[in-house]
Amino acid sequence: MKKVAVIMGSDSDLPIVEKAVSTLKKFDVPCEVHVFSAHRTPLALRTFAESAKENGFGVIIAAAGKAAHLAGAVAACTTLPVIGLPIKSSTLDGIDALLSTVQMPSGIPVATVAIDGAVNAALLSIQMLAITDEKLSNKLSDEKIKMEQEVIAKDKLVSEKYI
Amino acid sequence: MKKVAVIMGSDSDLPIVEKAVSTLKKFDVPCEVHVFSAHRTPLALRTFAESAKENGFGVIIAAAGKAAHLAGAVAACTTLPVIGLPIKSSTLDGIDALLSTVQMPSGIPVATVAIDGAVNAALLSIQMLAITDEKLSNKLSDEKIKMEQEVIAKDKLVSEKYI
Amino acid sequence: MKKVAVIMGSDSDLPIVEKAVSTLKKFDVPCEVHVFSAHRTPLALRTFAESAKENGFGVIIAAAGKAAHLAGAVAACTTLPVIGLPIKSSTLDGIDALLSTVQMPSGIPVATVAIDGAVNAALLSIQMLAITDEKLSNKLSDEKIKMEQEVIAKDKLVSEKYI
Amino acid sequence: MKKVAVIMGSDSDLPIVEKAVSTLKKFDVPCEVHVFSAHRTPLALRTFAESAKENGFGVIIAAAGKAAHLAGAVAACTTLPVIGLPIKSSTLDGIDALLSTVQMPSGIPVATVAIDGAVNAALLSIQMLAITDEKLSNKLSDEKIKMEQEVIAKDKLVSEKYI
Amino acid sequence: MKKVAVIMGSDSDLPIVEKAVSTLKKFDVPCEVHVFSAHRTPLALRTFAESAKENGFGVIIAAAGKAAHLAGAVAACTTLPVIGLPIKSSTLDGIDALLSTVQMPSGIPVATVAIDGAVNAALLSIQMLAITDEKLSNKLSDEKIKMEQEVIAKDKLVSEKYI
Amino acid sequence: MKKVAVIMGSDSDLPIVEKAVSTLKKFDVPCEVHVFSAHRTPLALRTFAESAKENGFGVIIAAAGKAAHLAGAVAACTTLPVIGLPIKSSTLDGIDALLSTVQMPSGIPVATVAIDGAVNAALLSIQMLAITDEKLSNKLSDEKIKMEQEVIAKDKLVSEKYI
Amino acid sequence: MKKVAVIMGSDSDLPIVEKAVSTLKKFDVPCEVHVFSAHRTPLALRTFAESAKENGFGVIIAAAGKAAHLAGAVAACTTLPVIGLPIKSSTLDGIDALLSTVQMPSGIPVATVAIDGAVNAALLSIQMLAITDEKLSNKLSDEKIKMEQEVIAKDKLVSEKYI
Amino acid sequence: MKKVAVIMGSDSDLPIVEKAVSTLKKFDVPCEVHVFSAHRTPLALRTFAESAKENGFGVIIAAAGKAAHLAGAVAACTTLPVIGLPIKSSTLDGIDALLSTVQMPSGIPVATVAIDGAVNAALLSIQMLAITDEKLSNKLSDEKIKMEQEVIAKDKLVSEKYI
Repeated sequence: MKKVAVIMGSDSDLPIVEKAVSTLKKFDVPCEVHVFSAHRTPLALRTFAESAKENGFGVIIAAAGKAAHLAGAVAACTTLPVIGLPIKSSTLDGIDALLSTVQMPSGIPVATVAIDGAVNAALLSIQMLAITDEKLSNKLSDEKIKMEQEVIAKDKLVSEKYI
Repeated sequence: MKKVAVIMGSDSDLPIVEKAVSTLKKFDVPCEVHVFSAHRTPLALRTFAESAKENGFGVIIAAAGKAAHLAGAVAACTTLPVIGLPIKSSTLDGIDALLSTVQMPSGIPVATVAIDGAVNAALLSIQMLAITDEKLSNKLSDEKIKMEQEVIAKDKLVSEKYI
Repeated sequence: MKKVAVIMGSDSDLPIVEKAVSTLKKFDVPCEVHVFSAHRTPLALRTFAESAKENGFGVIIAAAGKAAHLAGAVAACTTLPVIGLPIKSSTLDGIDALLSTVQMPSGIPVATVAIDGAVNAALLSIQMLAITDEKLSNKLSDEKIKMEQEVIAKDKLVSEKYI
Repeated sequence: MKKVAVIMGSDSDLPIVEKAVSTLKKFDVPCEVHVFSAHRTPLALRTFAESAKENGFGVIIAAAGKAAHLAGAVAACTTLPVIGLPIKSSTLDGIDALLSTVQMPSGIPVATVAIDGAVNAALLSIQMLAITDEKLSNKLSDEKIKMEQEVIAKDKLVSEKYI
Repeated sequence: MKKVAVIMGSDSDLPIVEKAVSTLKKFDVPCEVHVFSAHRTPLALRTFAESAKENGFGVIIAAAGKAAHLAGAVAACTTLPVIGLPIKSSTLDGIDALLSTVQMPSGIPVATVAIDGAVNAALLSIQMLAITDEKLSNKLSDEKIKMEQEVIAKDKLVSEKYI
Repeated sequence: MKKVAVIMGSDSDLPIVEKAVSTLKKFDVPCEVHVFSAHRTPLALRTFAESAKENGFGVIIAAAGKAAHLAGAVAACTTLPVIGLPIKSSTLDGIDALLSTVQMPSGIPVATVAIDGAVNAALLSIQMLAITDEKLSNKLSDEKIKMEQEVIAKDKLVSEKYI
Repeated sequence: MKKVAVIMGSDSDLPIVEKAVSTLKKFDVPCEVHVFSAHRTPLALRTFAESAKENGFGVIIAAAGKAAHLAGAVAACTTLPVIGLPIKSSTLDGIDALLSTVQMPSGIPVATVAIDGAVNAALLSIQMLAITDEKLSNKLSDEKIKMEQEVIAKDKLVSEKYI
Repeated sequence: MKKVAVIMGSDSDLPIVEKAVSTLKKFDVPCEVHVFSAHRTPLALRTFAESAKENGFGVIIAAAGKAAHLAGAVAACTTLPVIGLPIKSSTLDGIDALLSTVQMPSGIPVATVAIDGAVNAALLSIQMLAITDEKLSNKLSDEKIKMEQEVIAKDKLVSEKYI
């Protein structure tokens, strides 16, 4: 199976990002986790991105805050799908990271998820890999059903509480 | 090859959306185009989404404006990756469609691209299909190089003009 | 009397939503409370919405955060009036939920109240039921007068304090 | 049948507001149309709002732009449900009217629809009247089905065009 | 000397508003403090506003949060200058109150100060009264010089600390 | 009578600003009109502001767009009340000018009106002068009544048109 | 004298950007103009940025719209000061470009000017070069005085027109 | 070497601003720190700005919050490059300070850095001085390499932790 790369612009993003990692592990999707900065380690980032495909990666998740260029910088150097995960920082509530990640120019897409939406970033990467992986696709279906049943169970609790 | 579905909430979105269709055709990726509304044809939308996988689709692109629920409504009914394409409408410059598309709750991701970013929606779907399709992946690389060379050619023109 | 349904996208919305429930109880308006998710339990939601009218509901209040599709998804499946209650979540201060709820396309209205405005969601549902229920209408008038007198009492306290 | 009042802050709002009037007429719902300003004719507005119920109104639609106080000012003087219709003006794209209309304090709800969403304002008022009016409710269902079929017809056209 | 009225939409605004009161007292400007709500006590508000001039008021300061209609509602009923003080509430960081206060339609101005800017609301009212009151004008000048000297003293401390 | 100064940051603001001038003339309030820039003619601006009071001005209206510092820069150099008129420019729809004008620090108030709200800027200055000028106050009342009657006449036309 | 590089993400930015070029020419500051894209020609961009200093550049102006990464991408590869010029595009009025340019992480500054502020981008680069170039500094002073006098002349015209 | 001035609108900005000072000290760049207010000490500010060049300053950093006029007010009085550092205050998350600082009119640039981006303000000033100071330029390069290596070290830690 192709691996998923989870990269982040700063290790301060780890509390959010590790929810992506644990989601990938829950689905037994192999992954690597890295700290690369579009601005502080542009060379390491580029080297990683340019060789990601041949190194067995299928999808790259890139998490960053503020002027969040990480996902775009990776997308510039690979044709693999890149998932952008905007991180909320100390000012502007994440809207800066969201716009910097999603408003990409024509030709270089970034698949952007919600601000701090680490679980969804992982699920989206798994959905991509599952397009041609029936087993993984089934796991996603199972998980979706489980999630549905958890909400139904909560509905039961709540609706009974307020009768 | 898996097909890409391109669906839109209203046929008034067509001037933007058809750039996605033409991009898919340029890459010889089979696609179907539909008008489904999360609010006006919820039944048709659900039927489509629930059977999309077995009908040979690999990715779904969903374009919508204002309280753009289309992509989320599709994602609720399939485990295929869903690409959200927010459309700018007559008020609020597309920020309503962007937030309604991207801020999905944990469990149901939508891969959001830029407001009116139809070409990128198509490219992203192709990148997803290319994860396990070397030929398609090579086409993406070729196109990326061509795009690069076009910019380099423009640079030559512009830089000479201003010497 | 018709019942009011109070539904929410997640039980984490309960601390806000229960103010709506207690307001309905204060007016002796029968209600049911449910957890339905537009994305996680689309089937349960639809089943509920499609049968709400014949099950004796007159109004539906739908509370949700982020890309708040719940109210719109309900409104797509019923002709009952649907009240949207946008919930503030951990990012963007509720503006995402507000726009996702209020910016509905022509044909499918959602009656949106303030972010976290649970009491008003309940009062609005009561006002709707009171259009043809003189007794309920009188209760609303009484409550309005009581509210007015409470503010007048506070004015007295404050104005005397600062003489 | 109770009447619907359609009031607006300025006759410059008429091009948007008349879509609400024509929607009401399509449903044979009796209505009156007025220009009242929360700021320029506060006395006329109050007189109208305080007597609206006894004058046979069931719902009031209030359209206004900028610091759109009209709906709130009416809601302060009646227990009838008030629908707020925010109008886009020359600056700020309607976000000022939306926030001024929707962010009402606890106790005085305003049922807010989308910016310039005049058709939905009318439909919402009809839904409210239809809670206890089976004939009107059926008309709403019929219209909903018609709308659904129009979108399905468009889907047919569009999907065939792009095969 | 004319009096200044300091009114607020809710006594929960008092922690901010009392800075306006203490500023007025510092300048020995007579004032009255009231709790009036544009929505909950429209009659009391109107009675106050309509008689404010004959009751000896020269300026009215109106503080309110969310869909802050208070200042506009007062301005509708008097020709006295009305100062709008937008109050930050639990969502949207005060931008709703700011826009609801400042974006008044032509004909009914509200002199808006910064969000939570209670001291400035008071100073502005004093500046208005001082247009024709030389003694008060001199107090303002003295205070301005004192404020200037305090900053200069702080500059001295800070600049020496970092030599 | 004290004069009103109407100053603007650029003569490109004149199409908006002259509505303020014509409003002042309508009320026979003496005024002067100037182009001063907080950034391009800081010396001329300061000289004007520091001597405005002794030169017979009672109020200063300052119109500017973008990072609209004009009103604040004037307010720094006088104790006269300063009215800030934010002007919409080619980007950001005037929100930059609004925030730059209204969010003044404690100690230096600016009385801010709506974006492009030139008529209200003038009316506000007249209201300030009218605090101690009964004749001017009466003119304001007359004008208010006239405005009210114009809206009532429009209501008559509109309400009859839609019977 | 060091040269100024003026680079832009797309030749569609040229109508704005050429005002920067003409300003540099007016000051006889040598410059080169290039089209480089952070996403489409990352290699060419990097090569340029890494060698800019040794190629005689003193400052780099980078203009880009939407998720404007250009300035940040350059700043990552040089220690020369980089001026970011956000360009307004078809959606969001330039706020996306502004935030993507200015909200840089600690360690990699970008000197950001106003949206579409091409003249100021050029002037800022000249101010930087003028720190140690007395002749250039004098030109700036002369230009500043000229600009001041132009505004004073306009003031004369305007103030006389409205006497 | 030219000095850098670090000025702030209020000593309450010191916790943010002192990171700029310590960065300058780390690079042995001489600096002075001052508290000047565009509104409270306009005279002291102007005196400082007008004589900054002859007093040996090469760059001025100006930090301010809310309607942050400080940087613009300095830039109006000098041809030295002025760096604007927007400070987040109690409302609006710093967007008011950002727009008030960056949206300068043509002719008077301010080099704006991120909200609360004090380290970058200092680095940018050093980059400006380093244009013609090879030794300082080398220090910047060394620091850049050190920063890069720190991120690479963190990447090593993180990537190993998640294998």
